Order: sequence, then C-alpha cells, then structure tokens
Amino acid sequence: MRYGAIEAGGTKFVLAVIDEDMQIVARERIDTRLPAETLADVFTFFDANQVDAIGIGAFGPIDINKKSATYGFVKATPKPGWRDFDFLGAMKAWRDIPYFWTTDVNVAAVGEQQLGAAKGINNLVYLTIGTGIGAGIIQNGQLLSGFGHPEAGHISLHQHPDDTEFKGVCPYHGTCFEGLAAGPSLQARYGVPAVELGQEHAAWQVEAYYIAQALVNYSLILSPERIVLGGGVMHQQMLFPMIRESFVAQMADYAQVPNLDEYIQPIALADDAGVLGCALLAKYALEQQ
Amino acid sequence: MRYGAIEAGGTKFVLAVIDEDMQIVARERIDTRLPAETLADVFTFFDANQVDAIGIGAFGPIDINKKSATYGFVKATPKPGWRDFDFLGAMKAWRDIPYFWTTDVNVAAVGEQQLGAAKGINNLVYLTIGTGIGAGIIQNGQLLSGFGHPEAGHISLHQHPDDTEFKGVCPYHGTCFEGLAAGPSLQARYGVPAVELGQEHAAWQVEAYYIAQALVNYSLILSPERIVLGGGVMHQQMLFPMIRESFVAQMADYAQVPNLDEYIQPIALADDAGVLGCALLAKYALEQQ
Ligand SMILES: Nc1ncnc2c1ncn2[C@@H]1O[C@H](COP(=O)(O)OP(=O)(O)O)[C@@H](O)[C@H]1O
Ligand SMILES: Nc1ncnc2c1ncn2[C@@H]1O[C@H](COP(=O)(O)OP(=O)(O)O)[C@@H](O)[C@H]1O
Ligand SMILES: [Zn+2]
Ligand SMILES: [Zn+2]
Repeated sequence: MRYGAIEAGGTKFVLAVIDEDMQIVARERIDTRLPAETLADVFTFFDANQVDAIGIGAFGPIDINKKSATYGFVKATPKPGWRDFDFLGAMKAWRDIPYFWTTDVNVAAVGEQQLGAAKGINNLVYLTIGTGIGAGIIQNGQLLSGFGHPEAGHISLHQHPDDTEFKGVCPYHGTCFEGLAAGPSLQARYGVPAVELGQEHAAWQVEAYYIAQALVNYSLILSPERIVLGGGVMHQQMLFPMIRESFVAQMADYAQVPNLDEYIQPIALADDAGVLGCALLAKYALEQQ
Repeated sequence: MRYGAIEAGGTKFVLAVIDEDMQIVARERIDTRLPAETLADVFTFFDANQVDAIGIGAFGPIDINKKSATYGFVKATPKPGWRDFDFLGAMKAWRDIPYFWTTDVNVAAVGEQQLGAAKGINNLVYLTIGTGIGAGIIQNGQLLSGFGHPEAGHISLHQHPDDTEFKGVCPYHGTCFEGLAAGPSLQARYGVPAVELGQEHAAWQVEAYYIAQALVNYSLILSPERIVLGGGVMHQQMLFPMIRESFVAQMADYAQVPNLDEYIQPIALADDAGVLGCALLAKYALEQQ
C-alpha cells in the first residue's frame, strides 16, 4: 500500500507519498492560493503518484463532527475563498478512496506519538507555538474530539506581573494564550521579530511563564502522560528548562505528573511529523473500510 | 445481579445497593472517620446486603493509574489517616469481587451521562461547585484519565475587573478557579455564607464570570457536547442564564458550541447521581471480568 499525505496550511500545502515502512517516497510543496487552484495542484500530484488512501491535516477551524451537515468543510477562516469550502467533498469528487480528515495539529500529534517524541504514549498533548498556537490531543490512543476539535491555543490565562499593560494580539480574545505568547505577540510587545530577541532578553521569562501556565491547565484537565512542544518559537531551546521550572512553581505541588524532563519535551520529527501523521491516519482509514 | 455503591466523601460515605433496573434498594449514610472504623461500617453494610460487584467513587486526590505501584490508594489528602491509605486493597482483602475504582466526580458524571442530564451524550464535562470544585470528564463514552485523574477545579483564571484585590482561598494556588469561585471563596470575600447573599448581590455576576471563564477553557480544550453543573453553589438557579451570557461574551464567537440552553445544564439526578454512577461502573467491572 501507498499512503497520501496532505498537510494543508494557510501558507503552504505539503503533499507526500509514504510507503508501508513509513518512508517518504515523494514530497512536494505548493503555495496555498484559492481552493480551486490549490486543489488542482493536489490532484495533479496524486494523479502522478497513485495512493490507496489519503490523510488530510488542514488549517482550521474545520468541521470534523461526522454528525454535522458541514462535516469536511473549512469553517470561519479569514483566508480568502476557503471559508465554508467543502474540502473533503472536493477530494471525494475527484477520487473516491478512503480519507482521514482532521486538523494540521492532530496529524502532527499522531506522527510524534507513533514515530517521534511520544512513542508508546497513549495520552499526549502536542502543542505548536508559531504564528498561532494549536494543540493536538491524544487520549487513550485516540484523537480527542467532541462537538468539534480542540482550540486549546485560545484558553484564557492571567498575565505575568511584568506584563500587565500588554493588551494581547488575539483578534477574538486579546490576552488569551495565543494573544499573549504566539510569535506575533513577541513582535507586538518588543517591536522586533521574536528570532531577533537575544537569548538573555527578559521576554523569555514572560514567555516561559505563559507556556508553563497553559501546560499546568492542560495537565489539570487532561492528565496527559507527555507534552510535546514544537513550532517556530520553540526553536529557542533554552525555553525548555525555563518552562519546566515555571511549571513546578505554578502547579505548586498540586497534581502528580511524570518526571518533568520526560514530561515536557521538544518534537523529534521536525518537519516530517505532519506528513507521517497523515500517512498513519490514511492507513487507519483504509483499515476501517 | 445486585451492584454495590460506595460514594466516599470527606465528610460522609453513602453506601447503596442497586438492582438490574438501576433502582436503589438499600441506602445508608455513615460519617467519615478514620479508615479502619469507616471501612468496618462499609463491610457490615455489604455483609448484610450482598452484591456482585462494587463501584467506588472516592474523594481525592486518588491514584487511578493502573500502572502505578500505589493504584487504589488515597493520595495527598489533609484528612487524618487517609493519606496513602490503600482503599481498594482493603476492599479486596475483605472480599475479592470486581471493583471499579475512580473519583467521586467521575461516578456522578457517569450517573448523569447514562441516566440524567446528559443521556445519549458521549462527550461530557460534569462539574460540581461546592466546598471545592471538581470535574468528571467523559470523552468518547469513556472516563477521561491519563497519568492520573483530572483536577480541573484548579486551573488558573484571570480575575474579574471588580475582583482584582481578592487573593483567593486555594491553599495551593490562591486564585485558581476553586480559590476564586468555590463556596468558601464567597464566604471569604463577602463575610457571610454564600447561601445568605441575596440573589441580587453583585457577587453573582463575579461568580458567573469565573464559572463561564472556566467553561470556555474546558470547551476550547475538550470540545464537549454538554456541560452539567451541580454542587451547593449551583442551587442558585439564577446563575445559569448569567453563566450562559458570560460564556458567549468570553468565547467571543471563537469556537462553535451547541445551543447554550442545552449545552450548559443543571444536574438532573440530585443526590442519586453518585450512587447510580457507582452501580453502572460496578456492572461494567463485572462485565469486564
Ligand atoms: N528561532 C526562532 N525564535 C523565536 N521565534 C521564532 C523563531 N523562528 C520563528 N519564530 C516565530 O515563530 C512564528 C512562525 O512560526 P512557525 O511555526 O515557523 O510557522 P507557522 O506557525 O506559520 O506554521 C513567527 O511568529 C516567528 O517570529
Ligand atoms: N443554596 C446555596 N447557595 C449558595 N451556596 C450554597 C448553597 N448551598 C450550599 N452552598 C455552598 O456550597 C458549599 C457546599 O457544597 P456542597 O456541594 O453542598 O457540599 P460538598 O462540596 O462539601 O460536598 C458551601 O461552601 C456552601 O456555602
Ligand atoms: Zn484567542
Ligand atoms: Zn487551586
């Protein structure tokens, strides 16, 4: 069998073909334009590279509720042309093979869980902190979903004592986690791109505090066995020990968690987590047929 | 078959026998004293009222991780004698029948899900707001657990603009959800028991704001299909519309949720949720044998 992967981001799509041994045998990157143009490239790629099933991890919010009339649609995105687009329907109209339809963060969570930083772990939070903040959650070996998919980047937090004046940059909530701690918030607060702040900059104490506060809340609600952190901001490796230290202080000994060096970890698969997760979910969709 | 229920609270234990039709055929209430004395009464009750399996919902924190060496133990409670007590082990030593071991809020969640306010719902948050705040979470028809059980009453929140001076009463976190919004926080803030505050008191706007903020966070992380609220504080029925209104304002249209009158509901089983949940879980334990 050969599995197809569509990592559908707001800026770029990554398309790939993966074999039974989970080796990536073809890969292509295309720019995200209007739906029709973008999907035309997707069809061309998979016409040239036949696969038996496809996993799709799409930028959200998307409708993953199978009971919903708009299951398979992209929802309220500001991205021109994509709002209320029937993504999954367009794929099925092109070729009626098994699909697994979920979010971009969920496919990366599955990749890291089965092949990366959380191998053998059944209860996982995968968090990406980049332009936005998104979480993929695995509970009992299954992707967590209910009425919809998690939007855990938008939880409310209280502000760091040195950061009480900052209004946050989330257009919906101002000072939610994403509004306080995603890459653009650093640029808004300090006037330079996050990558240009020196490692000694006071920004990182504040950043670690917010990330740790969110992880404490995820831990109290979900009790995961591991939390894996990725995304552009987490390239700042010195954040990891700072986050662990702040986590201990903010949890205040309340709930038990595993050893923190294992509990809070960086991603292991770098850019491959998404496409490998898509392939694993494509395989699952095929087996469920 | 006859199922036993042990609702083990910090103040009282409720013991019950439930038949195949989920009718409560015997019930007794005993005071919680030292473990040996309390369990002696439990054994006496179930010696006189034979059952085939027992569900136990215990005050926490407790160890529900089957991989742990202290599975079945009560953990770091301030309650004299109970810390590190092997509750499940003591039950098994008395009689080797099937047990289901979980938290007091989890058994109530199961009761409400199968027989109460969330019948037919597979993804549920059950929240009790009383002396403390505790949550039982059902995902995909299963009680959510990972490394341990949820402690979702202790998540951090930001403070209401009219309440920024209050230090909170949680001994661990000060201003966590429980520290800001459980019954004792109202007493600490206003100097009278919550039940004596008039329905028009400004306290309830603040209370509704905190409860709504926590529900927004649970919704963003878990995407449940329904949230059921119980506990002493929720006897103030006028809180429900206030919570729904504040929920809408704080969610700021971000994530889709079901119709709010259905989404945020009071409990339906009153004091029976716990023992019925114990019985349903006892039945499950017996079937898993
Ligand atoms: N080395 C770095 N250090 C700190 N921040 C970074 C770094 N690299 C990228 N970022 C920030 O991360 C964000 C981009 O995140 P990324 O995960 O690369 O992309 P996206 O989230 O758009 O998929 C930008 O806001 C950028 O400022
Ligand atoms: N009618 C009421 N209105 C407001 N608060 C109440 C009411 N009844 C009880 N409470 C508060 O709820 C708490 C007790 O919660 P309850 O759920 O009855 O017990 P517990 O949590 O100890 O099992 C107390 O702090 C009390 O002040
Ligand atoms: Zn937000
Ligand atoms: Zn607390």
